[in-house]
Amino acid sequence: MEDLNYKKLVNMITEAVYKEIKPKEESSNLFSIPVEVSNHHVHLTRDSLDILYGKGYELTKLRDLSQPGEFASNERVVLVSLKMKVIEKVRILGPLREYTQAELSITDGYFLGLDLPTRISGNIKGSPPIIIIGPKGVLTLSEGAIRAARHIHMTSKDSEYYQVKNGDRVNVEVSGEHGVIYKDVVIRVSSNSKLAFHLDTDEANAGNVKETTLARIL
Amino acid sequence: MEDLNYKKLVNMITEAVYKEIKPKEESSNLFSIPVEVSNHHVHLTRDSLDILYGKGYELTKLRDLSQPGEFASNERVVLVSLKMKVIEKVRILGPLREYTQAELSITDGYFLGLDLPTRISGNIKGSPPIIIIGPKGVLTLSEGAIRAARHIHMTSKDSEYYQVKNGDRVNVEVSGEHGVIYKDVVIRVSSNSKLAFHLDTDEANAGNVKETTLARIL
Repeated sequence: MEDLNYKKLVNMITEAVYKEIKPKEESSNLFSIPVEVSNHHVHLTRDSLDILYGKGYELTKLRDLSQPGEFASNERVVLVSLKMKVIEKVRILGPLREYTQAELSITDGYFLGLDLPTRISGNIKGSPPIIIIGPKGVLTLSEGAIRAARHIHMTSKDSEYYQVKNGDRVNVEVSGEHGVIYKDVVIRVSSNSKLAFHLDTDEANAGNVKETTLARIL
Repeated sequence: MEDLNYKKLVNMITEAVYKEIKPKEESSNLFSIPVEVSNHHVHLTRDSLDILYGKGYELTKLRDLSQPGEFASNERVVLVSLKMKVIEKVRILGPLREYTQAELSITDGYFLGLDLPTRISGNIKGSPPIIIIGPKGVLTLSEGAIRAARHIHMTSKDSEYYQVKNGDRVNVEVSGEHGVIYKDVVIRVSSNSKLAFHLDTDEANAGNVKETTLARIL
């Protein structure tokens, strides 16, 4: 009888320990998420492109990006801050969007003299002003300069696999030596996605990210 | 009798769980380590300074650095890579050392076209060549361009408090939003130290490090 009770107790303990310990082990997934590095770039509305490159101008494709339908264009602009600091040759990403914004790194921010807020793409309210210059015109934005919040694009199938949901903020580790664990990585789930962890150049360089680097959600 | 055995068993379990769980809680120290950001800079030997600034030239102090005796000098140099890319106004740190090296960020490395190894200061063997130019001469180094391994300076008293030892590699988290956990941070213990976590500009910007940011060892 005593033995039986011991056994029952031990089973209860094993179960409790399993619950406590096992999820931690399972969350240490294999490194399986491709890492992509975004250099600074701009997104433009139809109206903005009209001003910068001329009425009805169409972006021409340099190369496809990983996210379906998105591309780097051959067209570039010059960015100027109100402190009269300049970054040349900033690429326009296509297709055109519902908002105009410049996505910059914190290093760019120091150079331009801007205190960049970290935002999900499209959320530019209250961000610093920036001047965008194209071959046909100048756009003076009262807001629009942000540092993009690092994020993982995934489909809902991926989100089931990784047990996360849209809008979650997770810690993400990258493979390789001298790596980094990025906190506050935003999960962005959409049907028209390809699995990819997006970092800016500061973030990638800090974590020693190479072309072969993979990431895992902790 | 049965009750007594249960009690003994429960105590054993509590002890085992304590051993397993407690160290993890204790290691999540308060954020207590100051974070300092190093911009790119050079260290020079007496011979190198003789070539760049003239025989017997003495560095003049711009400001003290946190580590006792170390200072940023008013003197600067130009760095040129074999790809003929140039970084101007790179500060010389004093005092003079037993080796000559340029400490650069990975962003600098991309700009200069150099694949920088991550090294502890002074370990430059096999690192890329770099040309250093001063007002009195040119120094063509066959090696000497590195990315400094991120590290924490501390005294042996600090190392007792944080339960680490010289040469350990630890994970370090910084306070604040959009932060980062840095892996492979080298512990550097010496009697002539002031507690400080040293990052380069890429690393600091990736982790949203501000003047008030503190770090903790995980």
